[in-house]
Amino acid sequence: MRKIIFILLATISGNLTSAQEIEGIPGEVKPKYILVVHGGSGTMPKENMTPNIEKEYRSILKKALQEGYNVLNAGKSSLDGVQAAIHVLENSPLFNAGKGSVFANSGKNEMDAAIMDGSNLKAGTVSSISVIKNPIDAARAVMDQTEHVMLSGAEADKFAEEAGCEAVDSSYFYTEERWKQLIIAKTKAQPKTSSLNNIEELKTIFGTKDLDFKIGTVGGVALDKDGNLAAGTSTGGMTNKRYGRIGDSPIIGAGTYANNLTAGISCTGWGEYFIRTVAAHRVSALVEFGNKTLDEAAHQVINEIDEMGGDGGLIALDKNGNISTPFSTEGMYRGMVDEHGNISVYIYK
Amino acid sequence: MRKIIFILLATISGNLTSAQEIEGIPGEVKPKYILVVHGGSGTMPKENMTPNIEKEYRSILKKALQEGYNVLNAGKSSLDGVQAAIHVLENSPLFNAGKGSVFANSGKNEMDAAIMDGSNLKAGTVSSISVIKNPIDAARAVMDQTEHVMLSGAEADKFAEEAGCEAVDSSYFYTEERWKQLIIAKTKAQPKTSSLNNIEELKTIFGTKDLDFKIGTVGGVALDKDGNLAAGTSTGGMTNKRYGRIGDSPIIGAGTYANNLTAGISCTGWGEYFIRTVAAHRVSALVEFGNKTLDEAAHQVINEIDEMGGDGGLIALDKNGNISTPFSTEGMYRGMVDEHGNISVYIYK
Repeated sequence: MRKIIFILLATISGNLTSAQEIEGIPGEVKPKYILVVHGGSGTMPKENMTPNIEKEYRSILKKALQEGYNVLNAGKSSLDGVQAAIHVLENSPLFNAGKGSVFANSGKNEMDAAIMDGSNLKAGTVSSISVIKNPIDAARAVMDQTEHVMLSGAEADKFAEEAGCEAVDSSYFYTEERWKQLIIAKTKAQPKTSSLNNIEELKTIFGTKDLDFKIGTVGGVALDKDGNLAAGTSTGGMTNKRYGRIGDSPIIGAGTYANNLTAGISCTGWGEYFIRTVAAHRVSALVEFGNKTLDEAAHQVINEIDEMGGDGGLIALDKNGNISTPFSTEGMYRGMVDEHGNISVYIYK
Repeated sequence: MRKIIFILLATISGNLTSAQEIEGIPGEVKPKYILVVHGGSGTMPKENMTPNIEKEYRSILKKALQEGYNVLNAGKSSLDGVQAAIHVLENSPLFNAGKGSVFANSGKNEMDAAIMDGSNLKAGTVSSISVIKNPIDAARAVMDQTEHVMLSGAEADKFAEEAGCEAVDSSYFYTEERWKQLIIAKTKAQPKTSSLNNIEELKTIFGTKDLDFKIGTVGGVALDKDGNLAAGTSTGGMTNKRYGRIGDSPIIGAGTYANNLTAGISCTGWGEYFIRTVAAHRVSALVEFGNKTLDEAAHQVINEIDEMGGDGGLIALDKNGNISTPFSTEGMYRGMVDEHGNISVYIYK
């Protein structure tokens, strides 16, 4: 019987290099399938984090990991696992993605998302969309249903609707806290050419937990039973953002990248620095031909961003199940689940 | 006198590693400053290329190189040199950028551009802009006047105007040939979810030289007297493009990248493949920590794109003045000028 299960699992896995021997049962293997998620990095003063708020964050992270695990455990792809986990985070008002997205200067929610398949380097991304309930679905539709990679603006919304993604009234994205943040930012900050120029001033104004306006991008990376990696990222961008600013999340190579040869990577932080360093692909390239371990590569890129004056973090996962989650900020909402269903979540270092 | 000139040049160059000995005059050095430009890669059947058309292309490429050379020779930066050369290409109706941009499905010209400074990894990019005469100027303004990297859509146009870039009436971008291409594409091709799906059909319809709809993106890479590298790219995108499709040109790491440690790179071709391979940063990373020469790295990436089913080319230039211009298509409009003002232009292999 054990032998039959072994053969069955080996067949399902299709890639024994990604299988591990189950402890205590010689010869018995269970393919590794792992999911890692993040809910953004940033300044999280402990005085603003009440036990109740912390419990809420941990609870949603766990729910996302559980949903993603259910998908992977059922034998579905890493893409499906990432998408399922990101759904949960997008549907929560706690994170700056989907339902909890911040408001742009226009008074609209302008959301970005990306997904990438490490098995064939296919990818789909959307930027500045406003009516799709789950932006990660729009990104997946771009990947699956077009030969394009990146669609943007109202036309991307239109495509996603035509492709079958659920559209909602803009009131769905309204949350009182995010609206207040916009009002304060607009009336007090009066940015000139860039909303980022005034970030120090804004920091002194805000009394919310979302002090640096960069917290809350969500993302996931997964390894499935077939040994395939995927990565996805979704964000509401930056409060009071103007001029159609696009951050790193929907940029393949910057905020999102997956390649079976190396890793799945999803980033969060000060997007401009992740674009300029081509952060996600840089981690991958350091592993692929820079002789770095995944952890060394991931830390090197976050350190480079830190030295340039930026900050943030990333989650990375390779085909052997190695995980790295470096960040240069005070905290990063993150968690992981392994093939046995063991869930761990973390906020601070 | 010779000694004085030597000291003067050495001082101006500020980086003797980028200086070369002038042939026949031992001890005499002139800092290298080089500009390479491209005007797109693609299918260019020789039967469609009359001697007159070929002469026109060569003439504009030479003019772009001469303008860029004048700027570099006057001691200005590689960014200025790239921008000056791209101005010439954008102002010509021959190339799919600026004046000669193709029409999107909307009947508008939706242009993208990017510029990057290899000395500090600063970058600026714009996507889907419609009223700025020279999109490369808008990209430069994003880099110089904001802390953002990427702005998009009508709001990016608005920013660029506020930042002092010349705006023009949309009729400026009208060219009869590009409009005809749109009409034919719209009436005959009837794309469903993706204009690219019908590219084979479109190829059979068109009788113009611009058979594969991907020719004409322009770009430049330069090395200045101070040893700094820069890269820039500008494009009108794809005829009849829908859904706010963004290609590789304005994506830092995909179509455009510059890093003094490695190279300045500008790409042209089937944009989706350059995004998925993170082509420009990949060339750079192969040089930085993959032990490849610039030419090996550039060819490797173009070969990888070819193996995936894409095509195109790129121009790359390093701090020592090494140049690589690989392409997998029939031809690529390209040219270069060295510090002595020697200009060469090429179209076919």
